[in-house]
Amino acid sequence: MLGVCYYPEHWPEAWWEEDARRMAALGLTYVRIAEFAWSRIEPDPGRFEWDWLDRAIETLGKAGLKVVMCTPTATPPKWLIDLYPEILPVDPETGRTRGFGSRRHTDFSSPVWHREAMRISTAVAERYGENPYVAGWQTDNELCCHDTAISASPAAHAGFRTWCREQYGDIAALNAAWGNVFWSMEYRSFDEIEMPVGAVTETSPAHRMAWRRYSSDMVVRFHADMIAIIRAHAPGRWVTHNFIPMPETGVDNHALAADLDFAAYDNYPLGRADLALAKSTADEFAPLMRTGHPDFQGILFDQTRGLTGRPFWVMEQQPGPVNWANHNPRPAPGMVRLWSWEAFAHGAAVVSFFRWRQAPYAQEQMHAGLLRPDCTHAEAWPEVEQLHAELSAIDLPAPTKAPVAIIVDHESDWLGQIEQQGRGYNYQKILTAWYGTTRRLGLDVDFVAPGADLAGYAMVLVPALALPTVEAAARLQAADGLVLIGPRSGAKTHDVTIPEGLAPGRLRPLMPIRVLAVETLRPDCPGSIAIGNASYASGLWRETIEPGECTVLGRYEDGAPAVVRHGKVHYLATLVEDAALDAIVAAMATEAGVETTPLNGMLRIRRRGNLTFAINYGAEPAEAPAPEGAEFLLGTRTVAPRDLSIWRAA
Amino acid sequence: MLGVCYYPEHWPEAWWEEDARRMAALGLTYVRIAEFAWSRIEPDPGRFEWDWLDRAIETLGKAGLKVVMCTPTATPPKWLIDLYPEILPVDPETGRTRGFGSRRHTDFSSPVWHREAMRISTAVAERYGENPYVAGWQTDNELCCHDTAISASPAAHAGFRTWCREQYGDIAALNAAWGNVFWSMEYRSFDEIEMPVGAVTETSPAHRMAWRRYSSDMVVRFHADMIAIIRAHAPGRWVTHNFIPMPETGVDNHALAADLDFAAYDNYPLGRADLALAKSTADEFAPLMRTGHPDFQGILFDQTRGLTGRPFWVMEQQPGPVNWANHNPRPAPGMVRLWSWEAFAHGAAVVSFFRWRQAPYAQEQMHAGLLRPDCTHAEAWPEVEQLHAELSAIDLPAPTKAPVAIIVDHESDWLGQIEQQGRGYNYQKILTAWYGTTRRLGLDVDFVAPGADLAGYAMVLVPALALPTVEAAARLQAADGLVLIGPRSGAKTHDVTIPEGLAPGRLRPLMPIRVLAVETLRPDCPGSIAIGNASYASGLWRETIEPGECTVLGRYEDGAPAVVRHGKVHYLATLVEDAALDAIVAAMATEAGVETTPLNGMLRIRRRGNLTFAINYGAEPAEAPAPEGAEFLLGTRTVAPRDLSIWRAA
Amino acid sequence: MLGVCYYPEHWPEAWWEEDARRMAALGLTYVRIAEFAWSRIEPDPGRFEWDWLDRAIETLGKAGLKVVMCTPTATPPKWLIDLYPEILPVDPETGRTRGFGSRRHTDFSSPVWHREAMRISTAVAERYGENPYVAGWQTDNELCCHDTAISASPAAHAGFRTWCREQYGDIAALNAAWGNVFWSMEYRSFDEIEMPVGAVTETSPAHRMAWRRYSSDMVVRFHADMIAIIRAHAPGRWVTHNFIPMPETGVDNHALAADLDFAAYDNYPLGRADLALAKSTADEFAPLMRTGHPDFQGILFDQTRGLTGRPFWVMEQQPGPVNWANHNPRPAPGMVRLWSWEAFAHGAAVVSFFRWRQAPYAQEQMHAGLLRPDCTHAEAWPEVEQLHAELSAIDLPAPTKAPVAIIVDHESDWLGQIEQQGRGYNYQKILTAWYGTTRRLGLDVDFVAPGADLAGYAMVLVPALALPTVEAAARLQAADGLVLIGPRSGAKTHDVTIPEGLAPGRLRPLMPIRVLAVETLRPDCPGSIAIGNASYASGLWRETIEPGECTVLGRYEDGAPAVVRHGKVHYLATLVEDAALDAIVAAMATEAGVETTPLNGMLRIRRRGNLTFAINYGAEPAEAPAPEGAEFLLGTRTVAPRDLSIWRAA
Ligand SMILES: [Zn+2]
Ligand SMILES: [Zn+2]
Ligand SMILES: [Zn+2]
Repeated sequence: MLGVCYYPEHWPEAWWEEDARRMAALGLTYVRIAEFAWSRIEPDPGRFEWDWLDRAIETLGKAGLKVVMCTPTATPPKWLIDLYPEILPVDPETGRTRGFGSRRHTDFSSPVWHREAMRISTAVAERYGENPYVAGWQTDNELCCHDTAISASPAAHAGFRTWCREQYGDIAALNAAWGNVFWSMEYRSFDEIEMPVGAVTETSPAHRMAWRRYSSDMVVRFHADMIAIIRAHAPGRWVTHNFIPMPETGVDNHALAADLDFAAYDNYPLGRADLALAKSTADEFAPLMRTGHPDFQGILFDQTRGLTGRPFWVMEQQPGPVNWANHNPRPAPGMVRLWSWEAFAHGAAVVSFFRWRQAPYAQEQMHAGLLRPDCTHAEAWPEVEQLHAELSAIDLPAPTKAPVAIIVDHESDWLGQIEQQGRGYNYQKILTAWYGTTRRLGLDVDFVAPGADLAGYAMVLVPALALPTVEAAARLQAADGLVLIGPRSGAKTHDVTIPEGLAPGRLRPLMPIRVLAVETLRPDCPGSIAIGNASYASGLWRETIEPGECTVLGRYEDGAPAVVRHGKVHYLATLVEDAALDAIVAAMATEAGVETTPLNGMLRIRRRGNLTFAINYGAEPAEAPAPEGAEFLLGTRTVAPRDLSIWRAA
Repeated sequence: MLGVCYYPEHWPEAWWEEDARRMAALGLTYVRIAEFAWSRIEPDPGRFEWDWLDRAIETLGKAGLKVVMCTPTATPPKWLIDLYPEILPVDPETGRTRGFGSRRHTDFSSPVWHREAMRISTAVAERYGENPYVAGWQTDNELCCHDTAISASPAAHAGFRTWCREQYGDIAALNAAWGNVFWSMEYRSFDEIEMPVGAVTETSPAHRMAWRRYSSDMVVRFHADMIAIIRAHAPGRWVTHNFIPMPETGVDNHALAADLDFAAYDNYPLGRADLALAKSTADEFAPLMRTGHPDFQGILFDQTRGLTGRPFWVMEQQPGPVNWANHNPRPAPGMVRLWSWEAFAHGAAVVSFFRWRQAPYAQEQMHAGLLRPDCTHAEAWPEVEQLHAELSAIDLPAPTKAPVAIIVDHESDWLGQIEQQGRGYNYQKILTAWYGTTRRLGLDVDFVAPGADLAGYAMVLVPALALPTVEAAARLQAADGLVLIGPRSGAKTHDVTIPEGLAPGRLRPLMPIRVLAVETLRPDCPGSIAIGNASYASGLWRETIEPGECTVLGRYEDGAPAVVRHGKVHYLATLVEDAALDAIVAAMATEAGVETTPLNGMLRIRRRGNLTFAINYGAEPAEAPAPEGAEFLLGTRTVAPRDLSIWRAA
Repeated sequence: MLGVCYYPEHWPEAWWEEDARRMAALGLTYVRIAEFAWSRIEPDPGRFEWDWLDRAIETLGKAGLKVVMCTPTATPPKWLIDLYPEILPVDPETGRTRGFGSRRHTDFSSPVWHREAMRISTAVAERYGENPYVAGWQTDNELCCHDTAISASPAAHAGFRTWCREQYGDIAALNAAWGNVFWSMEYRSFDEIEMPVGAVTETSPAHRMAWRRYSSDMVVRFHADMIAIIRAHAPGRWVTHNFIPMPETGVDNHALAADLDFAAYDNYPLGRADLALAKSTADEFAPLMRTGHPDFQGILFDQTRGLTGRPFWVMEQQPGPVNWANHNPRPAPGMVRLWSWEAFAHGAAVVSFFRWRQAPYAQEQMHAGLLRPDCTHAEAWPEVEQLHAELSAIDLPAPTKAPVAIIVDHESDWLGQIEQQGRGYNYQKILTAWYGTTRRLGLDVDFVAPGADLAGYAMVLVPALALPTVEAAARLQAADGLVLIGPRSGAKTHDVTIPEGLAPGRLRPLMPIRVLAVETLRPDCPGSIAIGNASYASGLWRETIEPGECTVLGRYEDGAPAVVRHGKVHYLATLVEDAALDAIVAAMATEAGVETTPLNGMLRIRRRGNLTFAINYGAEPAEAPAPEGAEFLLGTRTVAPRDLSIWRAA
């Protein structure tokens, strides 16, 4: 199903009815509204104006549309900030208060902000919780966008001290856990604890990890409280949230999604490619400029689905040029439809476009919509028409469990930021590389959190699991399938110390090695590893390991073990180039009996139930790896450029 | 005529007379003084010491020199700052107060500063307004140098609120004009308005444009008040100001110059080239290292002349290495003379060198003068001698109107900074590219402000006119000549919104197209346009246009219109490489009957009255494009390296 | 002799005895302790806990080890900061207070900090001054690490005003000396003086130089007071300090070392190479990645020795990968031994490894030790065993005076930062280049301070001596040997003004030239000089000189003099490429009768008494330049890769 994001408050009321009519005629089902409308809902402190919003909802609903209602907490109005300036967050890098004038000018640690956010959420939920046209709810909007998970405000300082007390109980335990004796950093009471910001040189990794966990917990608590309010007033309605790319929240995303019915994602392929590939060469970038990278959508679709394990939404889908990347090209013809189809292939229930009509004013006036500001059709319009027609003709089966699980671990990411050790170490790049390998091999993937049940997966990939919990280690040990564990896994205890007996610490039962030393090399000065007759670059992270009783599968240039195996578990002691990962994972798949479909270039495949989707990001036709006799529901065996084919196996 | 900048307060009084004698002997006419002398004029609050300055002026005057007197407001003394610390400006990027210790430590928004600046200006004007040796006045010094047009002080905040009230009358009008509903940014009163600094993410373009206009207005008001004071006390004397490069003021330069008799410019070709071409390759830069870029002087000479439409001064001319660029080479032999001659070619009345004698102390001790600190001749001395001799032999005619007008628009520049949309979008680079085309075609140019009378110009070039006023649009429509309008023109209303009916909004009467979409590409991943059989790169800004009834002259790689024509008006919907501009403008000139003189390499020509100047920036001789029978007043048909020829057509 | 850094407070007391036993068994003599132990020595204000430290010292001492005791002032505990927040330093770039949470969170200008630092130093010195196991003392730890020499605190502001009063006596003298008239920067009293931070644009060079001197003086005073306390309580014990690389202290290192018995250096070749060569290409860097640059250790060993003129210590020697560079490789096998031997070759008395056992927690848990956290041998262990065996077999003679002196001048370094004039000007790079020339020529070098007695040196090299004192000029004139003076020498007076009669000012008696002009070029756009038939690049600094009666040895591309000679003194008027320096210095050595030993590639030699050490940093064997009949004490005539040979001339 399809939807759209709409801002009745931006347009003359006289336009609403015609807008609703056109939405319905286009085949849209859902309309998300009101996430930035606080200043219109409560124009003065305590004075609410509901009438306009009542009418807007009714107009949409009467046209047959289902409303997705939002809490407007992403943009508190000026009067609230003037009443309670302590709501504003503080930039930890500079110590400067981050002011009013855009959005997300709030501090999750602020008790006043928490109270006010819940107050307005309650008001909206009370008003519309049982409105017949409101099908479900979106909390807030893009939580933690613009680096807002972390604030260094006085409220955050106080909250952190309280949190530390709750976590550690007495200060001696905290000092011991963090190793505060190291530089006479010992505290005598929780009231002496500083935030790990603005120190002369780097603060302790344990201190910074605690700060990250605290900051994440504040967002999770905020979100859980808001969801509870909605649920209390909106019986039978679902609740979701539109995530920014998960790596950018700075939060434990699984915890953040825990109380949701399903997760949603805001998908901007071109802006994302422009920023993520800013250092790529023109030869590398030009083919992706108008399509995005073929893996960058899937990796986030799969992660979004993994947050709840249920079909996800794309709450905002880019319909044309955006305004916020370094460069903002037009999508290649067909890409708006193709990105949408890829979302459905990866298990989407709904794709909703951002936004109905391009705003002629304010920050996003250069951001395309389905309509131009003058109400004429923008470029994506006919693609949405086509998409609706195609969707109407195909019955999408429920998404099924993938053969491969990838464990995604936010704490490994944070560790890589806190204790980088080599400038080339980047957890998100590692995760992306491992995902890329599965995509090139045509393997479907489920992303799961550490500690998730791994039963039924033929293969489990662990790019890094640096601080494994007891539960996460146990789940890995209980996995049914072959397991590939990447470097730095088990490197630390919960409090970011080296485990007794050295790494991999809690993972040693799976992998009886000892990590004796780690080195990191310049990206342009790598060493190598040999696996069989093949040699691959290795440099950004290299562990010297004592292999114990493991079988050695690959060796460094000096003959030391670099890839080892113990039963069903493989351990890769170094970061390697993609080709090495491809070879290792392909061999494991063969052993695991999982069929691979090696893909070249810009074609990717994804299965949903008994359907297979082949998505061609390239400018040339590509051959679909469909079995003989496959029944094509869309497209043909030759997948046209920027097009897809869907088939059911014969 | 020639002049020099002199600081009697820097030298023993015993030296003054000999200095004056040598100045006169060198052929200098004007001596500028006292712009940094506040601490000597008023060493304690309210206690003035005039005697030394009286004597200095008399000494210079008696030697036959004419004094250019200054207001010393660029450097208020420490005691004033200690009395009134609120004078100090605040850095909008960091929120940090910018302190005492160099210069321009003042805030144009500060009422206290305004009062004190006018007080000292009045005192100086009263003292010297009718001094017979004082020929004219310079206001302040290099207004807005060091990014001082904008301050985020409390005074600026208060001033901005008042200014908004004056501009918009009631707060609902402002909210509507700025589109503040967008992210609940609505204000309930003018007292709620923030400065657009320090917000969590980007603030509204309308908000930022208003802030730029406000900041500019404060500088203009400051300047106008100062000029009025001088005029009240200095009957019959002219008033000027020495501008830094106009793009760097952050101010509406035409408004800033409105009350002046003429404008002056401080010309530092090598420092400017070093900074502006910092990213150029060695092959590109080495030929320009000791000469500057052949267009960078002319573009500012022409803009300076355009500020008042009257002959301009070079108030400060680089005489040797400076101290402030990243690298500071010596000029190639002959360049000090050549730069000066180029100024005269472009309509200068006076060229004045900075400075008489190199200071042995403080911030600029590595900056060359005409004399070394030990009073010996520095390198430029003989070039000034030669220049004086040459000037004495040639009667320079009055500058005449050029055949080509280029509209220079500071608001387009600001828009490009506020809403860049693509990192490659840079109004000043666009303006420079368009000017470069005219120079390579040997076309003389007048720079005019939007809204200027365009009668009599055979061609009008509009690199960008993004927010045209009613008047500016009307003047363009009334133009006599062929008009070339660049992309983004008419893109916005006064309050930085998309015009009703889409761009080009107010320019649609001239050019009946609709701009449907805009994309921006990475500089290294351009698309192309075809004009006739030629193909050119296009990427930094690309508009999708509906051509209406226009003739299509050029098309994008996908066949969509990119260059169109409607009557005498051409519209270029994209930023293109120089060769495309050269071809388009050359074709227009042919049609307009304006003779072009295609020039290669480092030679440039400029006409002044009935004289033509050929300036050779290159290291090789160049052929002057002089007609047969031309009478050479200086040089010959072969223009020597770093030399010039001047001829009168036969 | 060998030593190690040990932190008994980091480990269970039960481990101490076995640790001590293993240290002794490894052949270690010295153990440095307690430099970060303040929070354990004084856990609450005024409450001291000595017992644990008494026992630790006794345990070490009874095992036959000699203790190096430290004052713990690098890491004051949290309670001290909470009691006296004014101790915290203020970042001059941002104005932000630098907080608690790491180390060196103290302000040398703070009277409270000074009092507290001396209080704890006194307490420790009283307790252990006469302890029989304490052989000597280290003051503090790595003074000024993390850019802590300079603080912009209120205390620093007050201290700077007092210091200025002491230096200049009356404010008119200061105004005159600094040239404050220049931009009306004149002060009316010392109480008006600002710190040169946060101004609108650059402050006066004299102002900044005074600020640097003041900041340095504060550190020197702090250090001198601490040394005096130790000496008062520790009769017969030596006192040293472990310097960071001297260029990074921001202090007059000779003054800082003045009261020490000898100086020590903390040697981290790989971290240093990674940072210093970050812009090198992969081809340049890869051969050095695991060895460090062959000159970067020697230049600091020689400077450390030069601080007191007595054998130095390496107090901390890298034993494996570190944690703080951008990339942290493992040393090539043998390098830990080789770096240690190189220290002994350059005159070390002791090499002490950092640290005994890798910490499993806090900031440096990724920093290798001699033992891993689990007490097993880390990689360097067998190299230390080998080193101890080799040292036991060789009787190292006392270091002897070198034939060549290089003057190292911190004020030239500061001037280059304060008034860079060209981005390529970098005193430390110049010093490194000159040192590199001597190393490639096989010349031993002593680094001396300006003003040192130069008697007995066959050659004196002066890379830059920009602000020579009367004494330094006199010493140079009195030098016995040939002198080579580099550009910018004599460029300024004490107060950073151009000398009367122009540069080289006070050096004119040695070198009767006048520096007429200076230019600086982009590194990629150099000019050249010719010496004889050879041509060399010259660009980063180029002086136009009037050669007077000097002999011209080299000329710029335009024929102007660039290298001149006057008697025994040579003057190089420009920065040149290495090959030019090599040729000039080689010719001087020939004339001076100093034998050179031209070396290629990665081999370096150093003499100590009658022994010659050949150190091979390369991956290939190299031929030792040993005379026939040389007696090899270690190694052979073919020096193995990453190995050394030592011989005694026959
Ligand atoms: Zn309720
Ligand atoms: Zn008056
Ligand atoms: Zn005592």
